Amino acid sequence: MANSKYEYVKSFETLDKLLPNVWIVVRVDGRSFHKFTQKHEYQKPNDERGIQLMNRCAFEVCQEFTDIVIAFGESDEYSFVLGRSCNLFERRESKISSSIVSYFTSQFVYRWREYFNDYPLRYPPTFDSRAVCYPSNENLRDYLSWRQADTHINNLYNTCFWTLVLKGNKTPAEAEAALCGTLAEQKNEILFTQFQINYNNLPQMYRKGSVIYRKLVEESYLDQKSNQQKSKFKKRLVIEHIDIISDKFWKENPSLLNDK
Amino acid sequence: MANSKYEYVKSFETLDKLLPNVWIVVRVDGRSFHKFTQKHEYQKPNDERGIQLMNRCAFEVCQEFTDIVIAFGESDEYSFVLGRSCNLFERRESKISSSIVSYFTSQFVYRWREYFNDYPLRYPPTFDSRAVCYPSNENLRDYLSWRQADTHINNLYNTCFWTLVLKGNKTPAEAEAALCGTLAEQKNEILFTQFQINYNNLPQMYRKGSVIYRKLVEESYLDQKSNQQKSKFKKRLVIEHIDIISDKFWKENPSLLNDK
Amino acid sequence: MANSKYEYVKSFETLDKLLPNVWIVVRVDGRSFHKFTQKHEYQKPNDERGIQLMNRCAFEVCQEFTDIVIAFGESDEYSFVLGRSCNLFERRESKISSSIVSYFTSQFVYRWREYFNDYPLRYPPTFDSRAVCYPSNENLRDYLSWRQADTHINNLYNTCFWTLVLKGNKTPAEAEAALCGTLAEQKNEILFTQFQINYNNLPQMYRKGSVIYRKLVEESYLDQKSNQQKSKFKKRLVIEHIDIISDKFWKENPSLLNDK
Amino acid sequence: MANSKYEYVKSFETLDKLLPNVWIVVRVDGRSFHKFTQKHEYQKPNDERGIQLMNRCAFEVCQEFTDIVIAFGESDEYSFVLGRSCNLFERRESKISSSIVSYFTSQFVYRWREYFNDYPLRYPPTFDSRAVCYPSNENLRDYLSWRQADTHINNLYNTCFWTLVLKGNKTPAEAEAALCGTLAEQKNEILFTQFQINYNNLPQMYRKGSVIYRKLVEESYLDQKSNQQKSKFKKRLVIEHIDIISDKFWKENPSLLNDK
Repeated sequence: MANSKYEYVKSFETLDKLLPNVWIVVRVDGRSFHKFTQKHEYQKPNDERGIQLMNRCAFEVCQEFTDIVIAFGESDEYSFVLGRSCNLFERRESKISSSIVSYFTSQFVYRWREYFNDYPLRYPPTFDSRAVCYPSNENLRDYLSWRQADTHINNLYNTCFWTLVLKGNKTPAEAEAALCGTLAEQKNEILFTQFQINYNNLPQMYRKGSVIYRKLVEESYLDQKSNQQKSKFKKRLVIEHIDIISDKFWKENPSLLNDK
Repeated sequence: MANSKYEYVKSFETLDKLLPNVWIVVRVDGRSFHKFTQKHEYQKPNDERGIQLMNRCAFEVCQEFTDIVIAFGESDEYSFVLGRSCNLFERRESKISSSIVSYFTSQFVYRWREYFNDYPLRYPPTFDSRAVCYPSNENLRDYLSWRQADTHINNLYNTCFWTLVLKGNKTPAEAEAALCGTLAEQKNEILFTQFQINYNNLPQMYRKGSVIYRKLVEESYLDQKSNQQKSKFKKRLVIEHIDIISDKFWKENPSLLNDK
Repeated sequence: MANSKYEYVKSFETLDKLLPNVWIVVRVDGRSFHKFTQKHEYQKPNDERGIQLMNRCAFEVCQEFTDIVIAFGESDEYSFVLGRSCNLFERRESKISSSIVSYFTSQFVYRWREYFNDYPLRYPPTFDSRAVCYPSNENLRDYLSWRQADTHINNLYNTCFWTLVLKGNKTPAEAEAALCGTLAEQKNEILFTQFQINYNNLPQMYRKGSVIYRKLVEESYLDQKSNQQKSKFKKRLVIEHIDIISDKFWKENPSLLNDK
Repeated sequence: MANSKYEYVKSFETLDKLLPNVWIVVRVDGRSFHKFTQKHEYQKPNDERGIQLMNRCAFEVCQEFTDIVIAFGESDEYSFVLGRSCNLFERRESKISSSIVSYFTSQFVYRWREYFNDYPLRYPPTFDSRAVCYPSNENLRDYLSWRQADTHINNLYNTCFWTLVLKGNKTPAEAEAALCGTLAEQKNEILFTQFQINYNNLPQMYRKGSVIYRKLVEESYLDQKSNQQKSKFKKRLVIEHIDIISDKFWKENPSLLNDK
């Protein structure tokens, strides 16, 4: 059974190399997660276990694919940023994008019990992914700002909505009507006046999303030669819930955008 | 925090619609499965549990994505064929390819215990995926023939190799040397003469791989009106280990290539 | 001056191979030809010299690029069809598309005087081009039918419009208003009743557009051995103004769709 | 004759938008220009008329497509650089690339007589084109340096080769053999010692190629109000034969890379 006469079908494969010297963002998104969170009784507006699990999966992805410079997650999505000079899988789009979404999903199912304990995973979830290229550092920062601003907008809305429903005894339709057309300020006001909730005091993880990156941290160690305590700087993968829209974060971590 | 000034970043996304009216093959491949099967002590040359798990995952993928017309699997890979007229995710390549690989992976981890029982999944596996277009029915059949011929070639080799190692007390290097340059006929001869193994009597699942498709089957039912046993034809998703290179299979299942 | 340190820039080029085994249509379109035809005082609704020049350019393109199976032209556009098995420039899209549009343009300027005599070419025209893939014979025929039906619709409209303006003493705005919402039948009626023009008697070149293809024709020759008149079949590139929507043309020229 | 049932074929067209915020280089190349220059008896190693015609065509292209920031030409090729923020044809690759190559070709044929006088254009030439994206200013400069370094290398070789043939009475094969493996220095030496030619005194147009860009120039004018001679800065499209590899050019023309 010779294979040679069929091998021509390989020539139908396309070479999908991404442009060199641009940032690559792979965004992983939960498919039908509205249904998934309902079936698994996620707490509203935010389920800490669910978010921690997402963060853990993303953390493991960043451990595995060391070309990832920074990742940002909120709700059921995570964006992974690969550096301009990254040559993972020779920058083949489908390889990069599919490997990341597969490993993320794999981790999600594998670690479900670590975060949900006895609560069973009723069915295996699906994520999709896509790769997008951003040429300049400004474009990349704007992309990340876009996602973090989105986190803020969604979370403020969801917090109001679910507070009105769960504590204000409104129906979903009533809550939706009450929020229709309101500005951020007004939503803050509703939370504060009606429910004594200061939105800015809620956990940053919900308000800012999660940032995973390799941080330069000082670590002390025992120098065996001199038998003295010394320190050196090392890159450590960390998860933080901080503002990445303003310049502060980027000034404190200049190496991120230098792509080294 | 207005989002509008960042939204321009969406314009960097590309529209990756696949050409209409061509067959779409999404091939899912295990990443570093050589290591994975070693770490999980897969039996050689074929681990029945491992193959059954792969088949189950693919079966579930076919259940979930009903645009899949036929799927073929061997070893750590599975090819899913979507019809010419399929409009899943508006034929967006990344959506289709990533959703399938994610759900496949999700099933793999989710159902591990069903097939490996107490044998623990030591770490979560990764698969990658890619989509390839095939214009004509002939091209598609040649693609599937290519994979099935590959199954035969690999399995015959692996069967010989592992028999020489496990039963013939050869080292891997010796087994490799013994097989170097041998034709199929000679490999069959080695198995038969030295080990009394008739290769053609080995399970078809190993020799032919696995085919999943929607088969027209006759099913009997009790007609409540007449209280009589009647029968009707229904499409049922089945897994078979049969030859799909020759015409027989395609003549018996003419609707597959008609894409309806 | 070493070049090697700059050569990495070649890696930014993308490989734009078109899918094998599909029809490739390269459509060449005049850019700003409304202005071009005005500046060069083209006769309305059809300028025979202008169309003959377009046809000649297309004919030369078909002579030069022998992979072209059939071409269809109307107004300021021409579609060139390359066969499924065509391997011109290894099916690189930009090479194919740019070479055809460049040669077409080159011919247009080069042969202007042959068709417009002393009427000067006031400025060099521009055409653009794009390649589109069509998988099945039916898709290709539908593409060509689309262009020929478009020819009919446009030409009937233009014939009415310009007859109303040139012979009916209407202003362009009045002519447009008179035709607004009319069906084909009504346009025929206007031409016939008001101007005694039977649309179907107008030259086929205007009504059907132009088809260029390699036709199997019988040619007689003197056989030198026997000194007798004999005949043989040869493929000759011809221009015809005939219906290619109905089956007749394709039945008479079965080799076109067989792509050999 | 309804067109609607065929219009689905439009959906087979792909959207080929180039990534935003990257430099776009469209390179136009003569097809089979070795033969073309022979048939038209171009002088060797450089035909001034031929190069001036190429430059004129490129100049007209830059006049017509004002998004072009800079262009560089040598031999039978020209590279046109469109700015990062350019939105010509909504950045559709095929539109941009085909329009430029078509207009370039059109100019070539149209203006042939201006440069070759009575020497007839024996047949219409063809150029091809392709678009390549460069993300950073450094990448773009490296691209242009690559082309200019190539100009130097080719021209030095060709000058030596043709001097050996035309003045040194060598056959082409002998000239080739004499130059095989020689370094730049040695080629300079051959020209100087054997033929008293100082390569660096040859016209810059041959040694450096041609650069077309919008230069900020001071122009004097009569101010009608004050009746005094005044001056102001204007951007003028110029052709120069200067070094664009070193920083000098870019420092003197900082606006080029600022893409405004």
